[in-house]
Amino acid sequence: MKVVALAGGVGAARFLRGLVRVVEPADVTVVVNTGDDLVLHGLHISPDLDTVTYTLGGGVHPEQGWGRAGDTLTVAAELRDRYGAPDWFTLGDRDLATHLVRTRILAEGGTLSRATAVIAGAWELAPTLLPMTDDPVTTRVRTADGRDLHFQRWWVGEGAEPAVAEVVVAGAAEATPAPGVLEAVGAADVVVLCPSNPVVSIGPILAVPGLRRAVAARPVVGVSPIVGGRDVRGMADRLLPAIGCEVSADAVAGLYADLLDGWVVDRRDAGLADAVAALGCRVATTESIMTTPQVAASLARTALELVAGPRRARAC
Amino acid sequence: MKVVALAGGVGAARFLRGLVRVVEPADVTVVVNTGDDLVLHGLHISPDLDTVTYTLGGGVHPEQGWGRAGDTLTVAAELRDRYGAPDWFTLGDRDLATHLVRTRILAEGGTLSRATAVIAGAWELAPTLLPMTDDPVTTRVRTADGRDLHFQRWWVGEGAEPAVAEVVVAGAAEATPAPGVLEAVGAADVVVLCPSNPVVSIGPILAVPGLRRAVAARPVVGVSPIVGGRDVRGMADRLLPAIGCEVSADAVAGLYADLLDGWVVDRRDAGLADAVAALGCRVATTESIMTTPQVAASLARTALELVAGPRRARAC
Repeated sequence: MKVVALAGGVGAARFLRGLVRVVEPADVTVVVNTGDDLVLHGLHISPDLDTVTYTLGGGVHPEQGWGRAGDTLTVAAELRDRYGAPDWFTLGDRDLATHLVRTRILAEGGTLSRATAVIAGAWELAPTLLPMTDDPVTTRVRTADGRDLHFQRWWVGEGAEPAVAEVVVAGAAEATPAPGVLEAVGAADVVVLCPSNPVVSIGPILAVPGLRRAVAARPVVGVSPIVGGRDVRGMADRLLPAIGCEVSADAVAGLYADLLDGWVVDRRDAGLADAVAALGCRVATTESIMTTPQVAASLARTALELVAGPRRARAC
Repeated sequence: MKVVALAGGVGAARFLRGLVRVVEPADVTVVVNTGDDLVLHGLHISPDLDTVTYTLGGGVHPEQGWGRAGDTLTVAAELRDRYGAPDWFTLGDRDLATHLVRTRILAEGGTLSRATAVIAGAWELAPTLLPMTDDPVTTRVRTADGRDLHFQRWWVGEGAEPAVAEVVVAGAAEATPAPGVLEAVGAADVVVLCPSNPVVSIGPILAVPGLRRAVAARPVVGVSPIVGGRDVRGMADRLLPAIGCEVSADAVAGLYADLLDGWVVDRRDAGLADAVAALGCRVATTESIMTTPQVAASLARTALELVAGPRRARAC
């Protein structure tokens, strides 16, 4: 079974660690959000690509869910203490090696796809990792107090504190899907929307022209990132209201109503099954707090089984 | 007394540490060789600028004479082990922060002069540090077996082993002195040729058009980098024969015969004083193995005193 997964950061990465236990890893293509990418200290940093890479490669910091296990902060401390550089974005030493490789490839005229392939190759990842686009796309948060912040600046730098007036995925309209993205989606038996933030992770991916339509043509299942009316981690509760969406598993399903054949909600949200079904989607309820890779694998199996088999007419 | 010092790496840096003890540090301008500069892992590395900066700033590795004291190699190990990057050039973590700052400034359109000023400012250096040029100049070694190697590749990468057929300072003829260099030389009471390699350190500086003539117009004193027929450190004995120069304190003085008013040789080379004097230069003999900053200060005082006072007619 060929699976394409649309992925953001930590939640997606943990889900993917389960997915590759229930389908052939080499049959999985992960299309990763790059709207969070930023340039810091001259380095091109792709937080979501890195989180997925480190997690699937077995090198992620286990508690954080991002960055490298056992990493140190020598370079970052020197940049801060000696050179007065901003330190709001944590940059571990091992992690920095990845950014150096990516930045060098880009500086030499390579694409983000090329850099991603090189890095994924070094980590010996069996799934194919693709950035959503090789073009510059930047998610920006316009705050209620009138500032226009890079998403990472708002999220990491200001702790997602400033109230959000609007989220803009700058550059998305002019972007082209990265090489292989549309082909992989077109060949997918199932497209999975990982449990990632709908506004700043899955949203930017689907905003790349051509992608939403391509996904809509395939069987699609999503896993709710909202459990019990809250985001499992992250800041969906700060962002969903900005797009007029309630913070609930069924409301998020509604954002994908044109795409979904199935939607997996947490067992704690079993009471929302009817509301989701009313969107015309199949619903599964299961444990979705991925405390172990085994839970993630079970969650992935539940998701795939929901839409595998004969294609169901889509009502929503 | 305004002093301009032409400087390479470790030998120059140790001399400068003495020089700033005997003249007002703010009256010293150091013009530094950039022919050794290289781009590695996408980082612009300026080995001589860094060695001078770390030494004058009190952060140099005391035994090595280059790199940072107490540095670690986390990023380099990751680049090598994970990403298969070349590791022949040692790149400490703290050191890397400097390269990141420089590379970022250059990537943003700044000059090497600008980067050098920012870095020197962060180290609170009292002397002015100037790269010899903001233009790309690269010292290349053509080996007897027909290879054309970046100087660092030959020196660090291959341990200066391959026999040298020719040394080429590529780009020098098209280079322009960095802003402030000619002005500083023109205003100098004394120009000092630090005890640096004449082929790959002082040579490239003097090869920048206009510089040799500007230096020749000022009182000039040099400190021999050759002691007892050998280089104190480094690889002059591998390079001098390639330009047809004997490895001796007097032969190196001969390379600067058009410039020198004075030449300081080590006490072990007292027997060469007449040969140097025959070039028309004043000669001083003293301890030149700079085991301590005190020895370096004494050496610097000896050098300055040799040419201070009324200008002497130059015979060589």
